Amino acid sequence: MKKKVAIVGASGYSGEELARLLLHHPHVELTAVTSRQYAGQTVARVFPKFAHHPGAKTLRFTEPDTELLAKQTEIVFLALPHGVAAEYAVPLLQLGRQVIDLSADFRVKSAAVYKEFYAHDHPAPELLGTAVYGLPEIYRAHIRNASLVASPGCYPTSILLPTIPLLRDGLIKPTGIIANSLSGVSGAGRTVKLDYLFVECNESVRPYGFPKHRHLSEIEQELSLAAGEQVTIQFTPHLIPVNRGILTTLYLAPAKHFADSTAMNELAEKISACYQNAYGNEPFVRLIEDEALPDTKNVIGTNVIEMAWRLDPRTGRLMVMSAEDNLLKGASGQAVQSLNIMCGFPETAGLL
Amino acid sequence: MKKKVAIVGASGYSGEELARLLLHHPHVELTAVTSRQYAGQTVARVFPKFAHHPGAKTLRFTEPDTELLAKQTEIVFLALPHGVAAEYAVPLLQLGRQVIDLSADFRVKSAAVYKEFYAHDHPAPELLGTAVYGLPEIYRAHIRNASLVASPGCYPTSILLPTIPLLRDGLIKPTGIIANSLSGVSGAGRTVKLDYLFVECNESVRPYGFPKHRHLSEIEQELSLAAGEQVTIQFTPHLIPVNRGILTTLYLAPAKHFADSTAMNELAEKISACYQNAYGNEPFVRLIEDEALPDTKNVIGTNVIEMAWRLDPRTGRLMVMSAEDNLLKGASGQAVQSLNIMCGFPETAGLL
Amino acid sequence: MKKKVAIVGASGYSGEELARLLLHHPHVELTAVTSRQYAGQTVARVFPKFAHHPGAKTLRFTEPDTELLAKQTEIVFLALPHGVAAEYAVPLLQLGRQVIDLSADFRVKSAAVYKEFYAHDHPAPELLGTAVYGLPEIYRAHIRNASLVASPGCYPTSILLPTIPLLRDGLIKPTGIIANSLSGVSGAGRTVKLDYLFVECNESVRPYGFPKHRHLSEIEQELSLAAGEQVTIQFTPHLIPVNRGILTTLYLAPAKHFADSTAMNELAEKISACYQNAYGNEPFVRLIEDEALPDTKNVIGTNVIEMAWRLDPRTGRLMVMSAEDNLLKGASGQAVQSLNIMCGFPETAGLL
Amino acid sequence: MKKKVAIVGASGYSGEELARLLLHHPHVELTAVTSRQYAGQTVARVFPKFAHHPGAKTLRFTEPDTELLAKQTEIVFLALPHGVAAEYAVPLLQLGRQVIDLSADFRVKSAAVYKEFYAHDHPAPELLGTAVYGLPEIYRAHIRNASLVASPGCYPTSILLPTIPLLRDGLIKPTGIIANSLSGVSGAGRTVKLDYLFVECNESVRPYGFPKHRHLSEIEQELSLAAGEQVTIQFTPHLIPVNRGILTTLYLAPAKHFADSTAMNELAEKISACYQNAYGNEPFVRLIEDEALPDTKNVIGTNVIEMAWRLDPRTGRLMVMSAEDNLLKGASGQAVQSLNIMCGFPETAGLL
Repeated sequence: MKKKVAIVGASGYSGEELARLLLHHPHVELTAVTSRQYAGQTVARVFPKFAHHPGAKTLRFTEPDTELLAKQTEIVFLALPHGVAAEYAVPLLQLGRQVIDLSADFRVKSAAVYKEFYAHDHPAPELLGTAVYGLPEIYRAHIRNASLVASPGCYPTSILLPTIPLLRDGLIKPTGIIANSLSGVSGAGRTVKLDYLFVECNESVRPYGFPKHRHLSEIEQELSLAAGEQVTIQFTPHLIPVNRGILTTLYLAPAKHFADSTAMNELAEKISACYQNAYGNEPFVRLIEDEALPDTKNVIGTNVIEMAWRLDPRTGRLMVMSAEDNLLKGASGQAVQSLNIMCGFPETAGLL
Repeated sequence: MKKKVAIVGASGYSGEELARLLLHHPHVELTAVTSRQYAGQTVARVFPKFAHHPGAKTLRFTEPDTELLAKQTEIVFLALPHGVAAEYAVPLLQLGRQVIDLSADFRVKSAAVYKEFYAHDHPAPELLGTAVYGLPEIYRAHIRNASLVASPGCYPTSILLPTIPLLRDGLIKPTGIIANSLSGVSGAGRTVKLDYLFVECNESVRPYGFPKHRHLSEIEQELSLAAGEQVTIQFTPHLIPVNRGILTTLYLAPAKHFADSTAMNELAEKISACYQNAYGNEPFVRLIEDEALPDTKNVIGTNVIEMAWRLDPRTGRLMVMSAEDNLLKGASGQAVQSLNIMCGFPETAGLL
Repeated sequence: MKKKVAIVGASGYSGEELARLLLHHPHVELTAVTSRQYAGQTVARVFPKFAHHPGAKTLRFTEPDTELLAKQTEIVFLALPHGVAAEYAVPLLQLGRQVIDLSADFRVKSAAVYKEFYAHDHPAPELLGTAVYGLPEIYRAHIRNASLVASPGCYPTSILLPTIPLLRDGLIKPTGIIANSLSGVSGAGRTVKLDYLFVECNESVRPYGFPKHRHLSEIEQELSLAAGEQVTIQFTPHLIPVNRGILTTLYLAPAKHFADSTAMNELAEKISACYQNAYGNEPFVRLIEDEALPDTKNVIGTNVIEMAWRLDPRTGRLMVMSAEDNLLKGASGQAVQSLNIMCGFPETAGLL
Repeated sequence: MKKKVAIVGASGYSGEELARLLLHHPHVELTAVTSRQYAGQTVARVFPKFAHHPGAKTLRFTEPDTELLAKQTEIVFLALPHGVAAEYAVPLLQLGRQVIDLSADFRVKSAAVYKEFYAHDHPAPELLGTAVYGLPEIYRAHIRNASLVASPGCYPTSILLPTIPLLRDGLIKPTGIIANSLSGVSGAGRTVKLDYLFVECNESVRPYGFPKHRHLSEIEQELSLAAGEQVTIQFTPHLIPVNRGILTTLYLAPAKHFADSTAMNELAEKISACYQNAYGNEPFVRLIEDEALPDTKNVIGTNVIEMAWRLDPRTGRLMVMSAEDNLLKGASGQAVQSLNIMCGFPETAGLL
């Protein structure tokens, strides 16, 4: 018996990927997709990229209606802007449905932090306590029983997965962390703005969102939890001319200075063990252990984040690099991973 | 003594290129640039690409004012949408100024054809008789004495220059001409539309503007003049993921069928002579006479159109391919070339 | 019980795609992949793009050995250069295995034509009579019982599928056909040549392979069979800066001239019916019947070819445009489609 | 009277740009270009991008011959690989010619450091003392009288210009400097390697050259000179899919911690004054002082480096970002800037 799911707000790039994943998922039936803009049209027509899927030819977009959604589905994905997602989450939860929210609305635990970063009052602060941050490799057990999963953002995923195990194991200092991130243009969503025109992005690379990007709220919350103390990081996003992919280069300080190559080798073994312990059996984390370095082209179209690290004896620093597809492991793929956990499906179902 | 010139409507990609060319031109002083959107700002600020030019730091955009422009300048470039350009051309000409118009407003000689293709009445039909079509290699003598130059569009230039000499010399049939054109995204202007977003254009190629693109009006007018009879062509533009450049592949039928290799060689000699005769001394037409084929990367950033041709003994067809920078030889460079002719400057001044 | 299959020569872009498809195929077990270059390494290491697939972690490349392959598998895919594929096909067929060849070796039925286009003697002319041209939409019945399938090239697929039904139904003239094709750079294979460097391809578009591309041999063979007479076409490939995708624009002459809009509408109905009849139920042919036009971004990553057509009342011509992924419908996807037919699997198995 | 100059080794991307600049330079005559590969061919044929320049049509590549070069020219540019440049520099200097070397051969002052980073003995250690590091904004006075200019690399320029004034003025700590750099693919030269194929670079971003890139030798030498003590930095280059451009993001620690917004404003004023003092009158340094951030598309095709900086009150860090064209300000443009200084030409001659 397939699980009935719906997507509210499936008109952006993440929503499109989510629809594609759910249509192809072996244990799921996508029973509703909503979009004010596309109401009445088939999924096949709106998203020609998977128009050949039989389900896409018959499924039609509808106006969002929470009561109807509650009747049609057991789990609802919200692919909406922040501030709007809560409007749907509240009634759907009241009607006993599970919600996986891809917006930022339920990622931070503090309404004050939300207001600081998103510049408006939190629309449903009473839910912040029950929401689970949907990073499966870190919160799998909590996701299993969650009614509301706040699926992480693309930048946070690329920063948190490499950093949390090191902080938890005390291998790096919680101070001085720098995350230099490079994102493809789909990260900006299907936003019709001069900045995202082809001619403005092609043959261009530029930093932006400086210095206090909204994603810092969830990144620092999660790093602080891992470190057991308040963590403040430096985060610089850059826009590069690719459709998809995030490459993050992390500059970290080992907790203990390594004075010679013996100490460096000991530290290297600890780091290797830390990552093996954290991710050695994870289906969607690829630990590169040879001379290769992460490359977004290796993960685009997959739910995989790949990671490599290096100790630099010249500077005493640890560098970790990660690559992921911002629309999959950074958004829709990860949300489906949470779905699989919530439903007891194999975690890789629909994601291999 | 430098010639004083102005640009009206310098906020798009063509206007930007034009401003760059004119600031660097050795015999010209750019005395005014107008833009409602940017009025009050310096050229350096609006166009950081040439902000290091001393002139860009002091010259400020102003609101367009034809009386003032007439006082400040001798020649005015109009880089405005069709339908709007005429509003400025009429008073500037009345005030005795010369006008080089980059829009489509004065390219066709018939107000009826204009209305057929642009879907509104021509705003100044009385000027259609005096405007000179600004294709220097074809109309140099007329441009020299023109008060109003209608600078050709990017697609027309890429089609007309390879075709007109062959038609004039009777080497090809005026029927059955096919022009398959590929254009970079800057050809759509600085247009903020979903279709031109990076993610929608990158890793994409598509035909569009089908089957009756507006540029057909000027293309067929000029081909008909060259052929001495009415010419109707097939023209298919495609959008490709490059910033700049047009590659046109022309499928032509030789006037006389060549039955064997001797006939083919004779025809080849005639075509070669025709092109040498037409363009052998042209500074901005590169006739490729070895085994190479046109490539937009060879002409981007220049005012050059490069051309190669092949006779196909299997099909009896003549194919001609051309490559140009749509913003230079296809727009602003060509307009400056006309300026040079009108002013008696060396034709390559500011364009090498 | 899964079908055991192997890939010989899986080190190029097509081989990589094929390995990916077969690893994910529900009814297939990929038991061997060979590559002299990569022998001994796991598929996961050589192709990090699908290293997360459990099968990729254990399967290792081996040296090619036809006897061993015959023991390990029932069907063997050959992803080898032309001239080399026959070396493997002959012994594998003798040992009773089925072969799906992605090279050009068995696509033409005449050894003389092969020699004319490939400049060497055919290595196994005795097999030319038994090979089936693996275009499922045209030769499904033959593929079902084939021992040797010659899977078509990327350009041929993009040209043949739009054209064959029109020729068969006598709706277009078999003369004067023009195919203007644009291909992504992966079409050149993983070829380390100056021409294919990023800097030489990016911000560039160029024609090449002129005027007698090797693919003409199979294209004209198949068009001639459809027309019932010898067909010679004009085919111009161009290289555009995308990884994947072919966009072909076909210029065709209707068999009967349409003099007015009534005649045009009648013809349009016939064309529509012809395509519906040919492809209305095909899972991998998308007939665009609204105002949209093909766009490679809609088919990249899928086994779909999308097509649209237009009658031009100005020129009397019929234009058909197609878009496909050169590595999937143009190569590996189509080969798996043939596999599905040969094995009696649902034709979309592993390809949705 | 024009200065006679030559280029030895003009076949790569930097050599091509250099040839273009020198052909267009108002005070220079390019009398010789050498290339073993292209000897005998015209510059116009080898570099179609500026084939329309009259000089390119007549100038032919020759085999490199230092005696002949010494007769033909007063100043010689070397655009050769490291290790090879010295072979030409030594005899040319002995023959009394001035040399501007674009390779790394004379950038470091210590033969031991050279060997450490380039893995072979320095070919002409006796010249290291006389070579001037050709960063005009820093060493203008020395360049004026130099016989041998070692023109800096692309990454070093992007890092040194933003950092040196801050170190000289004691505004930042010399420890803990991090430079995260993104480079277009032309930075790898016209190198025919799998890694630089279009399909391998497009839709990809990746770090490389890790952790001890050769350019560190000159970067740390110059930073140490500015700081008055040994400086070791963290430098991570990344490859991004653009033809040209380097974007460097620098993470710096202010020398004095700023505890509140008053202290921050004071520091900000000092930084602003430091940069104004260093570069306020520099023609090729653009200090962005409004809310904009550097973007490579604003500097491509120019000799400009643009810079912006931000103090982050959350982390106490100073961040500086720079953008330049790796082939111009990062290579050939900067070399011409040195030429202008050496010859007493206006420094912007041929570079505006």
